[in-house]
Formats: sequence, structure tokens, C-alpha cells
Amino acid sequence: MYASYFETVKTGDASLPERVAGQISQLIIDRHLTCEDKLPNEFELAEQLHVGRGTVREAVKLLVARNVLVIRRGKGTFIARHPGEVDDPLGFAYYPDKIRLAMDLLEVRTQMEPWVAALAAKRASQADMDRLREKSLLVEQDIFSGVNHLGRDTEFHICIAQCTQNLVMPKLIPIITYSVELFGSLNGNVLLSETVSAHRAITDAICGHDVKAAEEAMAQHLEHNRKELELLLKELQ
Amino acid sequence: MYASYFETVKTGDASLPERVAGQISQLIIDRHLTCEDKLPNEFELAEQLHVGRGTVREAVKLLVARNVLVIRRGKGTFIARHPGEVDDPLGFAYYPDKIRLAMDLLEVRTQMEPWVAALAAKRASQADMDRLREKSLLVEQDIFSGVNHLGRDTEFHICIAQCTQNLVMPKLIPIITYSVELFGSLNGNVLLSETVSAHRAITDAICGHDVKAAEEAMAQHLEHNRKELELLLKELQ
Repeated sequence: MYASYFETVKTGDASLPERVAGQISQLIIDRHLTCEDKLPNEFELAEQLHVGRGTVREAVKLLVARNVLVIRRGKGTFIARHPGEVDDPLGFAYYPDKIRLAMDLLEVRTQMEPWVAALAAKRASQADMDRLREKSLLVEQDIFSGVNHLGRDTEFHICIAQCTQNLVMPKLIPIITYSVELFGSLNGNVLLSETVSAHRAITDAICGHDVKAAEEAMAQHLEHNRKELELLLKELQ
Repeated sequence: MYASYFETVKTGDASLPERVAGQISQLIIDRHLTCEDKLPNEFELAEQLHVGRGTVREAVKLLVARNVLVIRRGKGTFIARHPGEVDDPLGFAYYPDKIRLAMDLLEVRTQMEPWVAALAAKRASQADMDRLREKSLLVEQDIFSGVNHLGRDTEFHICIAQCTQNLVMPKLIPIITYSVELFGSLNGNVLLSETVSAHRAITDAICGHDVKAAEEAMAQHLEHNRKELELLLKELQ
């Protein structure tokens, strides 16, 4: 049944499980399998690939580690909801100089996100706007109840990127907002009240399709963040 | 020796090897281990973590699959050169609509890369400029000898990002230039000669510290790419 996908696997530099993992990946891509779909079982795969079940099992483990497959207990092996997407895909956690990393991320955000906000104001659908207002409220709820709001803060920024209808931007936001987590513990009361008012201004501008205002409100928000970070760095020196 | 890093591991939702992998990661981060460094051996890790050697072995496999560790045959297990960085980290290979993906990536590039080129012109050191001229020549060599130049094309764009001195941008370029690979097979002669002249203009502008010219040359280059892609899509319809 899947024979055509599986050419001779016992050549090349990679280990055998690695190559079998590559072929299972290709099967997922070619067949447009999604998170609704179950992977064929070990026996079938082993037979089609002319490798042992142990090798298939190792290949599946590799793909689970890379978030291509998920094992649902008692149900079998499925395609992941966002196959291949991993947390911290650029390995920022392993960077030694966190302060420089935070400054550089903020430089990228300052360039990207005002543009993203402007595009969101131009293209947001009614459903997008409803979701954005909801996300904005959830951040405020966290802040006013003294709970860590950083997870929902990132969701708010992802939601803005979704309003652009561009498939790529919502995926880039979690990467470039990594700095939010880095300096999360430093958010004082000043930054919190700024967050509430800035998020409201951004949300209102996008929902009013006011391109210029959305761009400016986001630029101001990030500029404020940059100043706070610089102040903090001075204190640390 | 590493005992302080390893709290009780037998709690939580993740599997035991998954949790041990997390703790080994934390060790790498806390100790600023780099690709020069060898990971402590299985016996030591097993003892310190109070888990079996089999579990350590599974955890190491997970970290190899995620490019945090590399096994050098006969030498042992080392930290990867770019720990945690993976190919195609957003799983673009699994997107069903490649044409929309290519258009959306080009939209992001059109926004990002002229700015990157401008910043490169502002900040490039002499060593950066020498490397950029070399990368530009390598692309031309590939093109004039009829070899696939796409790998070196991406390297050229990464090199521009390195000229900015921003740590993050060179890591984002391979992600947003994923479309180059997607539509690589479609590069006709027109696009190839445009690539040569555009790359020369960009390189000259950056090496002359001409911020405005660098920005414009890059914008033109991407605009040309966009038009070619649109022409092609019309033909396909």
C-alpha cells in the first residue's frame, strides 16, 4: 500500500532509524496526513520498508522527539497537530548572553511588529477582531488578578499576527517574543499598567481598521519595553 | 558532582526519559557547555540522576533527535554546535498549500530583508564585508557553471544578516528563505541574471556603507522575485 514511498533505505550516511524516519515523514507530506490521521502500525511499516519492527520503533521515537508524531495511549500513533514545530526552535535557551539576546530580539520585534499590526488593521475579519478583543481581556484579567500574564501576552501578539492572514507570521511571533519570557520576572507595576493601556490602543486601532494608529501604538509599546530593558540593564551594571 | 542540577525526577506528566532529557538540557544551559564539551558518561549521569542507564540512554537519544547532543563515533557524546537548532523548525515541509506558503514567506521577506540590508550597510565590519564579497562570488560561480546555487544563495542572505551584528537575524533568514527552496526548480535564465546583478548591487551598497542603496537594492531584488512567482502562478492556473 505504501510501497511506492519507500525506496531502498539501506544506503547513505544517516543511521537506519534516521533514514526510516525520513521516509515516514515523506509519507506524511505526500499523503497530506493531518492530526486526525493515525500512522499505519509497526507491522505494516516494517513490512513495507523491509526493516525490522525495532527499527520502525526507533524511527517513530525520533519523530515523536521532533513533534512530528504523537503517541496517544491506548489509541495508537498519530500525526502531531503542528508537525515539526518545536518549542524554542532556534535553541535560544542555550545562548550564554541572555541580555544581548533580549536586546537583539527586541530590535527584531521593533522592526516586525508595527508592520504586523498595520497589516492586521488592514485585513482582520470580524471573527479575528472578536478573538483579539477576547485575548486582550484575558491578559488584563491575569494582570488585575496578579497572575503571571506572559503566556497570554504572547497569545495576544500571536492573535494580532493571525489577523494578517499571513500563515508565517503567527509562527514567527513565539520565536521573536522569546525575550518576553527572558525578562518576564522584571515586569514591575509601571510596565504592567503600560501593557494594559498599550494593548487596548492596539486592539482598538486594529478593530477600527486604522492602519496608521495600529502601527504607531505597537511601535510605542515596543519602544516602552526597550526603555524599560535599558533602565534595568543600567541598574544591573 | 552534578547533583545540584538534578532534583527528584519521578514526578510530573512527561515520561521519565523526557524528564531526564530536560535535566540534561538544564545542565548544559547552567554550565554554559559548548560544542567543545563532552557530556559526562552514562554511568555518571545514571548515578547522579538516580535512574537506570537505559533511561539515560533514552534521554540522550531524545536530545540527539533534537540536535542538542551529537554522538561522535569512538569519541563520546558532545554538545551540538548549534544546540536545539533544527532544520525546518516550523514544519513548513508539512504545509499542504505550498504556493500560499511561498507567497506568505515572500511577504515576510519583503518586509524584513530591506531593513536587514540597511542595517548591514550601517554596521558591517571589514571582515564582514570581505566575507560578503566572497559569498557573492560563490553564488555567481554556481550560476555560471550551471550548478544549483540555492544553498549558496541562502548563505549570501545569511551573511548579510550577520553584518547587522544582531544575533537573531542570521537564524531567522534560513526560515524565511525556505521559499527559495520551494520554488528553486522554477528559476529560469531571466531570474538567474537578475540574481547576479541584484546580488552585486546589494553587496556594493553594503560594502560602501550606503544604507539607502542597500535597502533599495534588496527591495528591488525581492520585488522581482515576487513578480516572477506571480507570473508563474498565472501560468499554472
